[in-house]
Amino acid sequence: MRIVAADTGGALLDEEYNPIGLIATAAVLVEKPYRTATVSRVRYADPFNYDMSGRQAIRDEAVLAVELAREVKPDVVHLDSTIGGIEIRKLDEPTIEALSITDRGKEVWKDLAKDLQPLARKFWEETGIEIIAIGKSSVPVRIAEIYSGLYTAKWAIEYARKNGEAVVGLPRYMEVKILPGEIAGASLDPREGGLFGKIPADTEGIEWELYPNPLVRRFMVLEVWRKD
Amino acid sequence: MRIVAADTGGALLDEEYNPIGLIATAAVLVEKPYRTATVSRVRYADPFNYDMSGRQAIRDEAVLAVELAREVKPDVVHLDSTIGGIEIRKLDEPTIEALSITDRGKEVWKDLAKDLQPLARKFWEETGIEIIAIGKSSVPVRIAEIYSGLYTAKWAIEYARKNGEAVVGLPRYMEVKILPGEIAGASLDPREGGLFGKIPADTEGIEWELYPNPLVRRFMVLEVWRKD
Amino acid sequence: MRIVAADTGGALLDEEYNPIGLIATAAVLVEKPYRTATVSRVRYADPFNYDMSGRQAIRDEAVLAVELAREVKPDVVHLDSTIGGIEIRKLDEPTIEALSITDRGKEVWKDLAKDLQPLARKFWEETGIEIIAIGKSSVPVRIAEIYSGLYTAKWAIEYARKNGEAVVGLPRYMEVKILPGEIAGASLDPREGGLFGKIPADTEGIEWELYPNPLVRRFMVLEVWRKD
Ligand SMILES: [Mg+2]
Ligand SMILES: [Mg+2]
Ligand SMILES: [Mg+2]
Repeated sequence: MRIVAADTGGALLDEEYNPIGLIATAAVLVEKPYRTATVSRVRYADPFNYDMSGRQAIRDEAVLAVELAREVKPDVVHLDSTIGGIEIRKLDEPTIEALSITDRGKEVWKDLAKDLQPLARKFWEETGIEIIAIGKSSVPVRIAEIYSGLYTAKWAIEYARKNGEAVVGLPRYMEVKILPGEIAGASLDPREGGLFGKIPADTEGIEWELYPNPLVRRFMVLEVWRKD
Repeated sequence: MRIVAADTGGALLDEEYNPIGLIATAAVLVEKPYRTATVSRVRYADPFNYDMSGRQAIRDEAVLAVELAREVKPDVVHLDSTIGGIEIRKLDEPTIEALSITDRGKEVWKDLAKDLQPLARKFWEETGIEIIAIGKSSVPVRIAEIYSGLYTAKWAIEYARKNGEAVVGLPRYMEVKILPGEIAGASLDPREGGLFGKIPADTEGIEWELYPNPLVRRFMVLEVWRKD
Repeated sequence: MRIVAADTGGALLDEEYNPIGLIATAAVLVEKPYRTATVSRVRYADPFNYDMSGRQAIRDEAVLAVELAREVKPDVVHLDSTIGGIEIRKLDEPTIEALSITDRGKEVWKDLAKDLQPLARKFWEETGIEIIAIGKSSVPVRIAEIYSGLYTAKWAIEYARKNGEAVVGLPRYMEVKILPGEIAGASLDPREGGLFGKIPADTEGIEWELYPNPLVRRFMVLEVWRKD
């Protein structure tokens, strides 16, 4: 099975480890044995000007996932929204009403569906590929989350080159290592069976430290700075 | 403390990783230091003809646990049902009504109790050993789950010998390794403190691969095939 | 950021692994990189005479944390109570009523606030340091929990010297090792990013064993005995 998935993660942090805004949406192609991505794409957000309501993320994810899926023609596309694995192209109002989610979630989805349902229907009509809202149960969505952390580290390196340093929060229980010519990352949850990723990056002249976010258990902070 | 426990797990999967039916009920004797089984028994189900409602599993588990308990005379028997550690022999209708579980759960247990309550009472009258519905809190129940995964791997090997290959899903966050003459397995959750198991098996002429189930995070898929 | 936190953990167990009472309240100073304590303090309870309602623990924790905070002057104090990170000095009745916790939780906090709110207000007036009820989200609270496990092991050694042996339950998913001259401990959850601790202890003439509590998954039992 060949699956495209997308997720958004990584946050710029202030001095007290509060998130200012999210950084990276990643889309990935995941193939058997489903432990890493064979292709990945990123779209960076502006963390200084970020809509933290969550709607920006899911829209960006759908658009980036469809872009990658047009190229690599997967069997299915997974989005990080836990509404029971439903096909996005079928999300009309009665279907949303019938979901077992909160009333607030229904309002959000009625709003989101205005853009996403036509996008998904058009994509399905052209390619036969379904986009499903499978959420946290999907391993490819988790791999996309790990890649959003890798691209967050890359963004932090570029930010530190210009501004001296950067402090970012990674997605849940994952680590990154900044190595010569690449950034490597992995899930810290062994129950996931060994999920990991890496991306090429210019890492010269950069130093870094990774440590637990003291205010948010199971999330790591990455600090990156210019070696004078 | 010497504890007998039973659990059911492992599923035959179709090509899209959907479960067709469950495979193995395992009963185990667990003794101090409570990390593995000193004795184990299996009863295989027919995954092509499986009642997925959950009632078949708990009945099979109770019967197999009692069978093993008659032999090894433990201090207590643990079943995988989370209804507060109550003794099964005491499950009459008013007691079930008073449980803090869903109405649906109460209907299921009124039905189950018809068989299990007399079984547990008879066993207790003869041996003085209680059968309790302790569920996920019990380490021996988790060890029984790991053994159901080991026996699922054994079943998959035998199925592959006849049919060329088998694709099975293991119980939650556990791994197996097919070694010369045996199958070894272990929990992937280090918080559990190192739970593991092994069973003898004829593993000659068999190849295998283990990888994350892409549709169900924290569950592994085992593929087994005949080395022609 | 320099954070003081406190937590209570470790239980004396009877022969069937049932808790008799809690053993140790630990307060810790945690500094960047937030993986262990740079200073720790303990107050032992009497497990044979312990109020298991939970009110004794939070009171002991607040008092011990303030004691340590007076010495080491942290930026903030974290307590293990999950009521949304609220400042304890602001806990008057209308504020407690407005918390999104159970009615029972509100009654407990109205009672607790009688002692803790004046303590926190006085401490804040004198030092400017806030005491916040951040709970499980705090890494320093988790490190305090690990230290309560270390001090529980120390208590068990002293108890075994007098009485021959001791059987104690450690806080959730952590391990300890009794080494020459010290007790080392660590979280068993790798998602936490490598939290650990150690304390000096006279460990001569002591033998020990660590194993999973068969009745409470993800909790370890420590047995300690005198090498006659
Ligand atoms: Mg997401
Ligand atoms: Mg079960
Ligand atoms: Mg506590």
